[in-house]
Amino acid sequence: MSFPLAEEAIKKTTEEVEDIVDPWNVTSSSDKGIDYDKLIRRFGSSKISPELIARIEAIIKKPVHHFIRRGIFFSHRDLEMILTAYEQKKPFFLYTGRGPSSEAMHLGHLIPFIMTKWLQDAFDVPLVIQMTDDEKYLWKDIKIEDANRYAYENAKDIIACGFDVTKTFIFSDFDYMAQCPNFYRNIVRIQKSVTFNQVKGIFGFTESDCIGKIAFPAIQAAPSISSSFPMIFGDKLKQELACLIPCAIDQDPYFRMTRDVAPRLNFPKPSLLHSTFFPALQGSKSKMSASDANSSIFLTDTPKNIKDKVNKHAFSGGKETLEEHRAKGGDCEIDVSYQYLTFFLDDDERLEQIRQDYTSGQLLTGELKKILIEVLQELVAQHQERRKEVSMDVVRQYMTPRQLSFRY
Amino acid sequence: MSFPLAEEAIKKTTEEVEDIVDPWNVTSSSDKGIDYDKLIRRFGSSKISPELIARIEAIIKKPVHHFIRRGIFFSHRDLEMILTAYEQKKPFFLYTGRGPSSEAMHLGHLIPFIMTKWLQDAFDVPLVIQMTDDEKYLWKDIKIEDANRYAYENAKDIIACGFDVTKTFIFSDFDYMAQCPNFYRNIVRIQKSVTFNQVKGIFGFTESDCIGKIAFPAIQAAPSISSSFPMIFGDKLKQELACLIPCAIDQDPYFRMTRDVAPRLNFPKPSLLHSTFFPALQGSKSKMSASDANSSIFLTDTPKNIKDKVNKHAFSGGKETLEEHRAKGGDCEIDVSYQYLTFFLDDDERLEQIRQDYTSGQLLTGELKKILIEVLQELVAQHQERRKEVSMDVVRQYMTPRQLSFRY
Repeated sequence: MSFPLAEEAIKKTTEEVEDIVDPWNVTSSSDKGIDYDKLIRRFGSSKISPELIARIEAIIKKPVHHFIRRGIFFSHRDLEMILTAYEQKKPFFLYTGRGPSSEAMHLGHLIPFIMTKWLQDAFDVPLVIQMTDDEKYLWKDIKIEDANRYAYENAKDIIACGFDVTKTFIFSDFDYMAQCPNFYRNIVRIQKSVTFNQVKGIFGFTESDCIGKIAFPAIQAAPSISSSFPMIFGDKLKQELACLIPCAIDQDPYFRMTRDVAPRLNFPKPSLLHSTFFPALQGSKSKMSASDANSSIFLTDTPKNIKDKVNKHAFSGGKETLEEHRAKGGDCEIDVSYQYLTFFLDDDERLEQIRQDYTSGQLLTGELKKILIEVLQELVAQHQERRKEVSMDVVRQYMTPRQLSFRY
Repeated sequence: MSFPLAEEAIKKTTEEVEDIVDPWNVTSSSDKGIDYDKLIRRFGSSKISPELIARIEAIIKKPVHHFIRRGIFFSHRDLEMILTAYEQKKPFFLYTGRGPSSEAMHLGHLIPFIMTKWLQDAFDVPLVIQMTDDEKYLWKDIKIEDANRYAYENAKDIIACGFDVTKTFIFSDFDYMAQCPNFYRNIVRIQKSVTFNQVKGIFGFTESDCIGKIAFPAIQAAPSISSSFPMIFGDKLKQELACLIPCAIDQDPYFRMTRDVAPRLNFPKPSLLHSTFFPALQGSKSKMSASDANSSIFLTDTPKNIKDKVNKHAFSGGKETLEEHRAKGGDCEIDVSYQYLTFFLDDDERLEQIRQDYTSGQLLTGELKKILIEVLQELVAQHQERRKEVSMDVVRQYMTPRQLSFRY
């Protein structure tokens, strides 16, 4: 078969200069970073509208997380279906993941997990978290043993986000493959439904790519099929469950592919909730990357590391001189410190005050950075405290296949 | 990487009209069937020489099986390495397999297993048998559940060949994937070392093929790495073991690929022992195929089925009229009944007498067919007797991962 992905086709407008957004590359040529409205049009997803937010808040009877309120999670696919299932007291599950490329995780890696933890609490639903150690072995120059070890180390940071152990299953691909016969079966079902031409179109694979990379998309797709988890979902599996995937929008290609094959394989299309990227310290042209230590604040950084990195590397939207800044004000749209505060300062009023003060020139870059440094030092210190409590025994609890509990 | 398979390159002589031989197609344009000498040159394997046969017989202190003596197993790769290992009392293992495409197996399917059983006895070595139910799901219009069921049904026929349960492990890909973490790890190691360009060159895959087919060759390659079987080989796995693969020569592309990646992944290149194809009743232009009932004698056929099929369909090398046959004699090279006797009549003297009598015209086609019918009726009846003894409990014994015993 060589049909195009018709329904979910990417709408390309050739006259536009396009940002590059795929699972391995995120770059923009603009100082303001990725044009997310354009991305929504290209990917064919939907913007999270004020009406949709109002509907969520009416259902869960509390305000949405500031990630949603502030447009950090800005796009979705079929989120309404999940809300309707919830209203009808039908079970659904959350699925997210992480590529364990090294021992150290940075602030940007936390974003999907903070969102997912909030969703787990708000909807009281089970969650599966895939650690794609096989992907990292295929894409990077590392050993399988190391990729697998990173999966377990990274799980500690994920668990430190506060997931409910009775409703959370974390798994390494390498290990889960040998724990559950259904996982490989669903992978092969997907692999039979997707051609090289399709993964070439979706992911840009070439004939020089190894066959492991070419086959991998099915492995990231399979956990969105609930029958990949018979031990986890137990008697809820009388039928396939609806699935909601919170992720950064660069992961969308995997799930466009998944949604395309779903009807042919008789499982529901997964719903998605897409985030923007967490910018590098150097600015919004690229996302924070663990492979560039200067671009990243790691979850292992000391208070001094954090202070030094922010002061030295955080791209400023302030003016060249004190006089000019006081006169013209700073530019929050390109200021990385301000951007970071939109992620991590949940007090809306205080954030708005900071925005006004910085824009008017009343708040100086150094003062803005000081606020961010304090916020991040506290955030990272608290994370480190919680992570210290996560022993390998605790990791094993989360990573042991066992039945999760459902509200509905 | 897009390097050619330099070392194991297929030597193509463009002026030759080539037989088609790959894992999915075997056809010849000649009445005499595949030109196996030409195939050895194209594939770059080695002919089994009288000297090599003499060496085998000296080592095992008995005559080789008539399959080797008569050139049915006619080609090899690095068989000497296996013999040297055996002489040095170093452990090695046998690996062969079957694609379980349906419940019914035919005579041709028995050939590699008869050879493998003989090798197991002669060298007293462990054996792993791969049932590629995943391959059959990918290539055919069948359900996973059916492919998996055929694996267990076919295992009964394989066990009926007499394999030693203390030295034989049979596994379904779908099931073994969830029984042994090393299997998937070795598969991904191979998948990282082989590009689409390479499988395109070796197997003729196209961009319209599904990614499951494209990735599959690694799954047939992985069992030739002994560390795919830690539970099976146990403490023998201080280092990777040498592997000998008896198979029909159409499976060679998988193992050319395997031998090419072996040095990069630090495991020994598997050795191979190649058989000719078991011809269809209609003649040597094609091999016996389960999908054409008229071309095949099934292991479930009754004595009457066998008699009728041989009488009706077995292509004859005899002459049009009795007079002409008596005068000019029959042609054993194209006579299917005679060909089958070379497989299943182990009495060399009697076979030679039959050849002379048929060639001289003394033996008529009907008489030759009668001899074959009796041989096959007895062979199939005995197989059916032995298969009746193979309960699902016995199948489970062979298919349970457990340590096999080694002589050395």
